[in-house]
Amino acid sequence: MSRNLMEMLRRRGFIWGSFEIYGGIAGFFDYGPLGAMLRRNIEDLWRKYFVVEEGFYEIDTPLVGIEDVFVASGHVSEFIDVLIQCKKCGAVFRADHYIEEKTGRKVNPDIESVRKAIREGDIRCECQNEFEDPVEFNLMFRTSIGPGGKKTGYLRPETAQGIFINFQRLLNFYRNRLPFGVAQIGRAFRNEISPRQGVIRLREFNQAELEVFFHPAEKNHPGFKKVEGETVNLVTKFEEAMEISLGEAVERGIIDSPALAYFIALTKKFLVDSGVDEKRLRFRQHRDDEKAHYASDCWDAEALTSYGWIEIVGIADRTDYDLRKHMEYSGKDLSVFIQYPEPVRKIKKKVIPRMDVIGPEFREKAGKISRALENFEYGGEDRIVLDIDGEKIVLTEKMFEVREEEELITGERVLPHVIEPSFGIDRIFYVILEHCYEEDVVDGERRSVLRLKRRMAPVKVAVLPLLTKEDMIDVALEIRDELKKEGIFSEMDDSGSIGRRYRRFDEVGTPFCVTVDHETLRENTVTIRDRDTTSQIRVHRKDLVDVLRELIYNERDLMDFGVVVRK
Amino acid sequence: MSRNLMEMLRRRGFIWGSFEIYGGIAGFFDYGPLGAMLRRNIEDLWRKYFVVEEGFYEIDTPLVGIEDVFVASGHVSEFIDVLIQCKKCGAVFRADHYIEEKTGRKVNPDIESVRKAIREGDIRCECQNEFEDPVEFNLMFRTSIGPGGKKTGYLRPETAQGIFINFQRLLNFYRNRLPFGVAQIGRAFRNEISPRQGVIRLREFNQAELEVFFHPAEKNHPGFKKVEGETVNLVTKFEEAMEISLGEAVERGIIDSPALAYFIALTKKFLVDSGVDEKRLRFRQHRDDEKAHYASDCWDAEALTSYGWIEIVGIADRTDYDLRKHMEYSGKDLSVFIQYPEPVRKIKKKVIPRMDVIGPEFREKAGKISRALENFEYGGEDRIVLDIDGEKIVLTEKMFEVREEEELITGERVLPHVIEPSFGIDRIFYVILEHCYEEDVVDGERRSVLRLKRRMAPVKVAVLPLLTKEDMIDVALEIRDELKKEGIFSEMDDSGSIGRRYRRFDEVGTPFCVTVDHETLRENTVTIRDRDTTSQIRVHRKDLVDVLRELIYNERDLMDFGVVVRK
Repeated sequence: MSRNLMEMLRRRGFIWGSFEIYGGIAGFFDYGPLGAMLRRNIEDLWRKYFVVEEGFYEIDTPLVGIEDVFVASGHVSEFIDVLIQCKKCGAVFRADHYIEEKTGRKVNPDIESVRKAIREGDIRCECQNEFEDPVEFNLMFRTSIGPGGKKTGYLRPETAQGIFINFQRLLNFYRNRLPFGVAQIGRAFRNEISPRQGVIRLREFNQAELEVFFHPAEKNHPGFKKVEGETVNLVTKFEEAMEISLGEAVERGIIDSPALAYFIALTKKFLVDSGVDEKRLRFRQHRDDEKAHYASDCWDAEALTSYGWIEIVGIADRTDYDLRKHMEYSGKDLSVFIQYPEPVRKIKKKVIPRMDVIGPEFREKAGKISRALENFEYGGEDRIVLDIDGEKIVLTEKMFEVREEEELITGERVLPHVIEPSFGIDRIFYVILEHCYEEDVVDGERRSVLRLKRRMAPVKVAVLPLLTKEDMIDVALEIRDELKKEGIFSEMDDSGSIGRRYRRFDEVGTPFCVTVDHETLRENTVTIRDRDTTSQIRVHRKDLVDVLRELIYNERDLMDFGVVVRK
Repeated sequence: MSRNLMEMLRRRGFIWGSFEIYGGIAGFFDYGPLGAMLRRNIEDLWRKYFVVEEGFYEIDTPLVGIEDVFVASGHVSEFIDVLIQCKKCGAVFRADHYIEEKTGRKVNPDIESVRKAIREGDIRCECQNEFEDPVEFNLMFRTSIGPGGKKTGYLRPETAQGIFINFQRLLNFYRNRLPFGVAQIGRAFRNEISPRQGVIRLREFNQAELEVFFHPAEKNHPGFKKVEGETVNLVTKFEEAMEISLGEAVERGIIDSPALAYFIALTKKFLVDSGVDEKRLRFRQHRDDEKAHYASDCWDAEALTSYGWIEIVGIADRTDYDLRKHMEYSGKDLSVFIQYPEPVRKIKKKVIPRMDVIGPEFREKAGKISRALENFEYGGEDRIVLDIDGEKIVLTEKMFEVREEEELITGERVLPHVIEPSFGIDRIFYVILEHCYEEDVVDGERRSVLRLKRRMAPVKVAVLPLLTKEDMIDVALEIRDELKKEGIFSEMDDSGSIGRRYRRFDEVGTPFCVTVDHETLRENTVTIRDRDTTSQIRVHRKDLVDVLRELIYNERDLMDFGVVVRK
């Protein structure tokens, strides 16, 4: 991130390091007043696209989880990094990152590979001393629930598990029909060993995850038809880059299912509408050796930033991994009965007793033998052995015949598969800021401008009295309150020259400035200035709300309205 | 809570116990699909009233905090309960709750009082055995940040500290002017010893807190004038109940400041508009012996529920306690320079050297002596002692004279006081459900109905095709999508008789059902049914969105619109 941008974000109240007055700590940051609004705008757009318009719902489950959940999910055993510690100075590093940083080579994050890489490369601590033998470190924050330390809790490493363990309740909510989706937006935690990438590698972060439960054989989406012509930049698991239509990518088997492809399209639309630059966005498929333990196919949305390409979204086919694990560990049945559209006929072999032989042979037991045969599963054997009141009864070939009968099967039980688009909201927030930040020259003066999408901007409108005169200020306050009441978040600012105030709002991405001037007092008109073009128009106050709404929410051009004051 | 209501909330997806498939654990619950929406609606209304309309901003800070913060805030030493454990069965209880439950008497939550109460009352465990000596238990969840266990972290016990420690940044954001307010909505944690009150006593909960920073001598609010005539039900710290106007309560010194009174009024408006029954709401002042260590005055909003009166909001004057503590522990200056409207003149005594005496006496040092006297603070002494280049110089009475001069003082540094309205969102959620839930009889049939405020309802409109016919279903889906696009969250439901569907939506508080019937297909009109009255009107489809918007957001009466079908 450019130093100018970072400085601006701190100074203007977007983000800053947490606990600054106590010296801070890596891996945590605060959303300031403007940052919190921008992040909420991102989350609201996500909710619109991935929840409301998809016809899905959201739930909210605890951040502290009991141990059973993460034993079953595999996080207790698998959510691990390898750490190395200096023998002398005690400094601790995440081994794979440290080795890559020092040698430029990637190393698998397991003890053996790390040990080998350190030995072969004679890798040492920054203080030039040797490392201790590498050890594993579980990345979940651990705590105790209640007194006595008997009940271990973990801060959740992802929001998804809160959805999986509630599968039965959710299936019931959706009236037992597949597919359905459930979302969760909220905090997740990863106790990083030594995070060193500013706002990119966090110990506490915000996720928006959607888990869509499909019949394993039906990973389709009704919306796929509408997006199959759209092209995306892909990098396949063989590291082949291509621009290709989603339809073709599915047809050629590059993307595993139409449902996955649909969510790639929706993700792209969401990111671009949020302010991510389409030209700095790609979808990269996980190589087979990097895929998570639960995924059969996974695509990351990656954005190009000053840190290089960084992952901002993961779209994974988690198969039935999680439900299967929770079913196994909890002992609860998490399968779904799927009724066939039409019952299916199945041929069943039925054993018919020959009572003319059995009657004389077994006398008073003949009736019981006949009843026992009614539900007998016949597998083609010559002799049938039955247990009648504890006595072993053997029926030879001549005592029965076999008839084939049709049976009607009305449905089957399946364990759903899950497709999961999982969004790292903090990173998206960060990418948007980087992609939207520019420094340009206006009227011969340098300015920094945040070209946020209008609907994403924290402060939508700045209302500015031209002069610090009471009558102008009063009108400006009136307009600000009116806009706020209409749900258009606005600020009034009367300090400093008008040019300086324009710059101040350009810098934080406010798309429009409304200026109250002498003509406002005489004729009840105001000017609207466009952040990006610095053009200005003049409109009547009675039209102001409607014009601003068109500009902000329908992305209309300023020049479509009012009287042009400045081009 | 009535068993029927609790059963409904679980069945319909409002709330249920967390981790059910693993046996659950006390003190945690999940917000299901409808519950999560209702809670978000509550938070959005809070944000509108306490943030946007107040002209304040919101921030979002980490849930994991470093130890320094909570040492300074007092939570490490003060956020403590006393626990008792059975010698035999090992059961653990929160001492004050257990003793009150068994004896009906309140006991102070400190070791000495608990020990005494147990001895005097011969209080035993439920298994009839004796307790171990009581011990203190800190209620913060504890964890470790990074590897090695060297850096202790705590899950925050309140959102407020994240605001206090950022005071400098926030003051700067508000351009160094008091008063200003900063809000935070989010999770907080309290590691309860043995929570046993269902959704009332939680280990993980949701707070909405507003911290307003005032000049210590100016705890006023411009909105107070508008609310001073409003009456509220108060219970004073002397346990005197009264219905009184806020103006009178301030005048009589019952409520400490106009600002506190204003926030009591705003809290009442918010709660009632959210669906809390005004008749079951009161404001109770903390007695001197129950006030938190940081508060000078505190009022709880309490609601009457099946658990009795429970606290749902605390409105406290925290004075400068928190800023003072953080200033002390961090060594950072958190005071604010307040410029006086006019500079204040102050008389200062100035020492004028009599050079005619000093010159001959001190010769080449005379110049230095004269300069040293320029900033000398004169306290009325007869002899002045100066240090000139390490030499002690004594000036006697005859060597100087004293003149009085005026000095202009432009302002002063103050440490702001904080008034904090702090909301327990989960409890408000719960109270709303209890206060809105009713069972009545409609057309001779029992129904349960959730009389949520219209704007609070999760599903605002149910669109119901009268019959399961494709043409009706298509129109219903079209209407649902149109309403969703307009931001009115709607559902389509075509299963079961129309009466059964009305009941189903009454039960979850959906205020309006729109029915698509034969006339819809012929004349493009639909009916709208009111949940509370079960009245119905018929309107044209083109007017539907506008009518629904008026009904839901402006609380208009159904009978004001369309053609009445059923009264």
